Amino acid sequence: MAGSGIGTLFRIQTFGESHGPAIGVIVDGCPAGLKLSESDIQYYLNRRKPGNSSISTPRKEADAVEILSGVFEGKTTGCPIAMMIRNTAQHSADYSQIAECYRPGHADFTFDEKYGFRDYRGGGRSSGRETAARVAAGAIAAKILEELGITVTAYTKSIGPISINEENYDETQITKNPCAMPDAEAAKLAESYLKECMEEKDSSGGVIECRITGMIPGIGEPVFDKLDADLAKAIMSIGGVKAVEIGDGVAVSKMKGSENNDAFCADTADTDAGHQSGYAVIYNELSAYLPENAVIRKTTNHSGGTLGGISDGSPVILRAHIKPTPSIFREQDTVTRNGDPMKLTIKGRHDPVIVPRAVVVVECMCALTVLDLLMINTTSQLSNLKRIYQNR
Amino acid sequence: MAGSGIGTLFRIQTFGESHGPAIGVIVDGCPAGLKLSESDIQYYLNRRKPGNSSISTPRKEADAVEILSGVFEGKTTGCPIAMMIRNTAQHSADYSQIAECYRPGHADFTFDEKYGFRDYRGGGRSSGRETAARVAAGAIAAKILEELGITVTAYTKSIGPISINEENYDETQITKNPCAMPDAEAAKLAESYLKECMEEKDSSGGVIECRITGMIPGIGEPVFDKLDADLAKAIMSIGGVKAVEIGDGVAVSKMKGSENNDAFCADTADTDAGHQSGYAVIYNELSAYLPENAVIRKTTNHSGGTLGGISDGSPVILRAHIKPTPSIFREQDTVTRNGDPMKLTIKGRHDPVIVPRAVVVVECMCALTVLDLLMINTTSQLSNLKRIYQNR
Amino acid sequence: MAGSGIGTLFRIQTFGESHGPAIGVIVDGCPAGLKLSESDIQYYLNRRKPGNSSISTPRKEADAVEILSGVFEGKTTGCPIAMMIRNTAQHSADYSQIAECYRPGHADFTFDEKYGFRDYRGGGRSSGRETAARVAAGAIAAKILEELGITVTAYTKSIGPISINEENYDETQITKNPCAMPDAEAAKLAESYLKECMEEKDSSGGVIECRITGMIPGIGEPVFDKLDADLAKAIMSIGGVKAVEIGDGVAVSKMKGSENNDAFCADTADTDAGHQSGYAVIYNELSAYLPENAVIRKTTNHSGGTLGGISDGSPVILRAHIKPTPSIFREQDTVTRNGDPMKLTIKGRHDPVIVPRAVVVVECMCALTVLDLLMINTTSQLSNLKRIYQNR
Amino acid sequence: MAGSGIGTLFRIQTFGESHGPAIGVIVDGCPAGLKLSESDIQYYLNRRKPGNSSISTPRKEADAVEILSGVFEGKTTGCPIAMMIRNTAQHSADYSQIAECYRPGHADFTFDEKYGFRDYRGGGRSSGRETAARVAAGAIAAKILEELGITVTAYTKSIGPISINEENYDETQITKNPCAMPDAEAAKLAESYLKECMEEKDSSGGVIECRITGMIPGIGEPVFDKLDADLAKAIMSIGGVKAVEIGDGVAVSKMKGSENNDAFCADTADTDAGHQSGYAVIYNELSAYLPENAVIRKTTNHSGGTLGGISDGSPVILRAHIKPTPSIFREQDTVTRNGDPMKLTIKGRHDPVIVPRAVVVVECMCALTVLDLLMINTTSQLSNLKRIYQNR
Repeated sequence: MAGSGIGTLFRIQTFGESHGPAIGVIVDGCPAGLKLSESDIQYYLNRRKPGNSSISTPRKEADAVEILSGVFEGKTTGCPIAMMIRNTAQHSADYSQIAECYRPGHADFTFDEKYGFRDYRGGGRSSGRETAARVAAGAIAAKILEELGITVTAYTKSIGPISINEENYDETQITKNPCAMPDAEAAKLAESYLKECMEEKDSSGGVIECRITGMIPGIGEPVFDKLDADLAKAIMSIGGVKAVEIGDGVAVSKMKGSENNDAFCADTADTDAGHQSGYAVIYNELSAYLPENAVIRKTTNHSGGTLGGISDGSPVILRAHIKPTPSIFREQDTVTRNGDPMKLTIKGRHDPVIVPRAVVVVECMCALTVLDLLMINTTSQLSNLKRIYQNR
Repeated sequence: MAGSGIGTLFRIQTFGESHGPAIGVIVDGCPAGLKLSESDIQYYLNRRKPGNSSISTPRKEADAVEILSGVFEGKTTGCPIAMMIRNTAQHSADYSQIAECYRPGHADFTFDEKYGFRDYRGGGRSSGRETAARVAAGAIAAKILEELGITVTAYTKSIGPISINEENYDETQITKNPCAMPDAEAAKLAESYLKECMEEKDSSGGVIECRITGMIPGIGEPVFDKLDADLAKAIMSIGGVKAVEIGDGVAVSKMKGSENNDAFCADTADTDAGHQSGYAVIYNELSAYLPENAVIRKTTNHSGGTLGGISDGSPVILRAHIKPTPSIFREQDTVTRNGDPMKLTIKGRHDPVIVPRAVVVVECMCALTVLDLLMINTTSQLSNLKRIYQNR
Repeated sequence: MAGSGIGTLFRIQTFGESHGPAIGVIVDGCPAGLKLSESDIQYYLNRRKPGNSSISTPRKEADAVEILSGVFEGKTTGCPIAMMIRNTAQHSADYSQIAECYRPGHADFTFDEKYGFRDYRGGGRSSGRETAARVAAGAIAAKILEELGITVTAYTKSIGPISINEENYDETQITKNPCAMPDAEAAKLAESYLKECMEEKDSSGGVIECRITGMIPGIGEPVFDKLDADLAKAIMSIGGVKAVEIGDGVAVSKMKGSENNDAFCADTADTDAGHQSGYAVIYNELSAYLPENAVIRKTTNHSGGTLGGISDGSPVILRAHIKPTPSIFREQDTVTRNGDPMKLTIKGRHDPVIVPRAVVVVECMCALTVLDLLMINTTSQLSNLKRIYQNR
Repeated sequence: MAGSGIGTLFRIQTFGESHGPAIGVIVDGCPAGLKLSESDIQYYLNRRKPGNSSISTPRKEADAVEILSGVFEGKTTGCPIAMMIRNTAQHSADYSQIAECYRPGHADFTFDEKYGFRDYRGGGRSSGRETAARVAAGAIAAKILEELGITVTAYTKSIGPISINEENYDETQITKNPCAMPDAEAAKLAESYLKECMEEKDSSGGVIECRITGMIPGIGEPVFDKLDADLAKAIMSIGGVKAVEIGDGVAVSKMKGSENNDAFCADTADTDAGHQSGYAVIYNELSAYLPENAVIRKTTNHSGGTLGGISDGSPVILRAHIKPTPSIFREQDTVTRNGDPMKLTIKGRHDPVIVPRAVVVVECMCALTVLDLLMINTTSQLSNLKRIYQNR
């Protein structure tokens, strides 16, 4: 195992160290017939690429993806899609110092404990660079979801003490500011805050929110493979995430049932009132029980789009809380691997905040999770098998 | 799939509906040679049993477990351990009303969407009763962890607005009050609060905290199967959990790196300063690098016992935020499955809060997760394979 | 693991020892909406039940199955279906002798090596009784396949030196003679042969053939999860099977390409010439390439219904070669577990041949394998996802 | 899925088409601390490389492997090992003819049925070239097994009517003749036979035998993941294999129990009488039951090294029956994908027999299977967990 794979029907397997020859991923189980080219992938990779602004690491990586298999005449063939990104900008010398000691907040110590030694260059396998492989795979998942009308959108909700103002929410802003915030004003404040952090040789945490709209009800399996459980794992597996919330999240523990329950109603309309209201439209025309054109909705969305671990058709909403970058440039106490105390001053190139570059990673992990469960759900009713196989 | 299994080497598979003939679980991969009897399991089951206090459902279940396989002459054989609990106290008539409508906050609607119809009696598969099977399996995992010196302890941290006072922390209290709080005083306040909720025909949310001590460093796989990621899935898969935090959790998003990083130090002492300090002792005498008797420690434990998704030897600390019981006795708006609006007043037997009975469920899900990753970690170094197979 | 589960989307997990309280199985991932009752299962179980004839063990088991979950109002709900069979006719005393020694041809020695000790009563987990759980699960798989027009039929092809005559092939005979042969004449000869074996305190091997008709082309995944690879595992996992052949099987190693290749032709007919000719009808009306009503066929079926590990629409044909029952009543050389040589004379109740009772086990393992791969194949094309999810 | 991965703890995932940019594999779960370089892999790849003799395809591939991750300072790190082989000698033009028609004995038709279209160049994913990725991964597995004293050796047993003479068996011959036979004389006869086949524009089948010596008893899981079941799947998943035998294989169906049972004896010797006798030495010094230096052996090895699906310490012996190369140069009947009948004469470069080049593939699939089950077995006893974790 070594845990480098995730997913069942749409399964990905990643590889690569920060300063090895290459990183990459194999996507196994991608349905045949999807139009796909390297530029579809590159667009997503560029969103997480370092070196884009004053508040990210000056490390410059081309991060150019090469598709090695699984695409023929511009379409996916159903066979494994391997993608590789050569590492081109290693400054391994920067890391020679940390070969012998344990950086606070990093996985140096735990890798030594687990494996007996470690590839210390740039954090090796535990580097954030590993997420590029997730993004390459997630770009494909997101493209398939788009074909089915499902959209996954993540953005920075807060950096340190600076939060977006929900009333300023403007999705088009997300890719326009270095903080990936859907609120241009908050983004400016956050940028100032990060510069302060950098001057203090310090770093900041933050929150990413993700909303998945156009959801089909019925996605997610009861008991262990709940939609929210699989999303929690997918998000918590991103380095630096320390908490995951679904819907009202931590707030529910102080709520009463009468506040938290979402009432159901029926309607004939089919508009999604969208971001602010959290009002859900549920497409269940298939239901044998309902009259034509009727839809059942929730009037609120405290649950964040799932009930009993299964999508209810309203937007899925989740938040990831991300710790401050552990690589800070002020002197820190630590020990060598022989146990000798020492003062460590980290060198190298490091973002003062992980959050903006992790936005697309969150988006991709959500896309991978939803698509896999959606594919699994395809066989939940015998009638679906008959629809596929009996009309051949 | 249907997602009723979890784990790789220590794998469990559960079954059963609230009002069907029985619920149960198969544990596959339990190591041979563990002393085990039904009373080991029953002790854990009794901790989640309904009908124990004024603040839990009056439903009385014997919840008597029967071991059907995998134990011989008082020891596990290495073969699958099947356990079954007969359902004996069904009041199915109570649920006839909800056969035709969708209860707010429940999975009635999503099960109909996913499967085309549902076993509506007592919530069927989506009932909290399902967790008894998790507890039966988790009891075995916890027993094996105990043999290896690892202890998993969960408790109620808050109910609605009532939180425990860390200074009153007393582990022996957990099983002594109906709120499962390690603080007798807070428990009394919480009990009063819950009685208020019940009078208002309402319910309350709350928080469960779990700490895993005696942890061996090196548990958890890099990238997707991180210890914290697998814990997040395990916990979020429990019905009603809407957020999971590891270590400082949601607080990290407002912290700076200099506050959040845990420094390393070395020492020769080997005492675990325990609950209040969060000070960790790491047992790594195996390390080739360290002089005899030296241990490397973290001086704080903001990370909650993991670095890079791998246990660092300090206590693993996590919190689950649980929503208020959705079954409340006041009138609620909903629709029938034909889309007709209606007023619903829920009958039946329901706890005003899920939290105290879920404490042992959280404990068991943590035990299952840690044991599975610990077993997987056994083969992470070639030298371990040699230790097992070459000295035969 | 312990390897007691098989399948991905239609996954089964079995438990139980020969002389423990019960054996059983959980089926996870059964599509919702299948009509199912205990009698559907019992019919299959009765076909493998001991005590049916002069050539099977006189052990009498009721083998009455109880469905514990997953069926409501006569239909599968999509949730796990647990089934249990109580063990009722244990004569454990018969086995006390073998607690201390290793029976030739049995797993006593290997269980001791693997687990350090073993449940020796009746072979414990390694008893053929374990297959009853496979049959209970396979009965469900076979029923779903029938709904899709796929039929799985197994029968005894030979017992010792006695083979069926293909010209006498009569499917209706399979359930009418104790040898499960589709040739009444051969069955009589085989019965005589077995009686001879019994008189000599000996036992016999044999061959089971299975043919799967109505196959949909496209089932099976390239590379590792080939249809024939998964069938080989499923069949070889049945105790006593020592070889598996697909299509022309072992004969291909002596053939030339010109003899072994199956030519393709096109036709408008849609009759399956059936058993003798091996002539295949392929239902591929979906193909964009073909004119209406045209079908592409193979003119022969040396390949046994697969090409590149994927079903080609012609009947899948396989054979399992089964060793003679290892429990024979003549004196055998062996050792105690302390290494002392001894003469062993086995007591108890044992079939002189495994084959006839294993016929339904082969059938069920094939049904489980085909259904699982068929369900996985549902998502092989993007257009299938659109058919299921876009017309909701 | 798409079924491009195999294994649980030592898991591989392959990718690549015959004429795409590259083929390759990720090995996830390789234990840390194994010395490994590209030359270890290359040695195995060279054994399956085309263009080595007059009886193999004249296609010349460098087949140079590049390790992309998971190795640092000459040792495996425990993180995924990705390996890539660039395709360099594509003659895609040779295949333009077959874009529109279905070659007999190939997977062209079934890929079209499964995926709606296919990468027809050189057979795409269904090409034998895919096996190079298996060999790259298997080379690592074999190296680990060597460290534990386990050796996997495969060779050609027969080609068409020409079989090796067991009395001439000489392992050193296997790599010295183009037929990979351990009998120089038979190899010459087989070479002549193949030249005849080529002159007749025809091809030949054959048999590969594999023996695994130094086996540790206890490997393999009861019920579904039996050692022989997993080997059967691994071998049957190699393109062209139509039958798999373990031990006496197909012969058992005509044997009696008294002939097929292997008696046990005890001894203090520890020599492996090896190839001819099939006499097994079992290393079980750990056993609590046995006096020091005693070993329990089987006096014969009809079972082929497994009992109840678990290794018994004697050599594991299996045979794969491989069909003749379907690409033959004589005219064949087939249809276009529109159903029009046509005469096909295949061009391109094709081996007249698959067998000799598949020998190393069989060896590698066996190594992968045994290592994975050996790693899983590590946790079969609680005492093993204690040995690893309590002496830290």
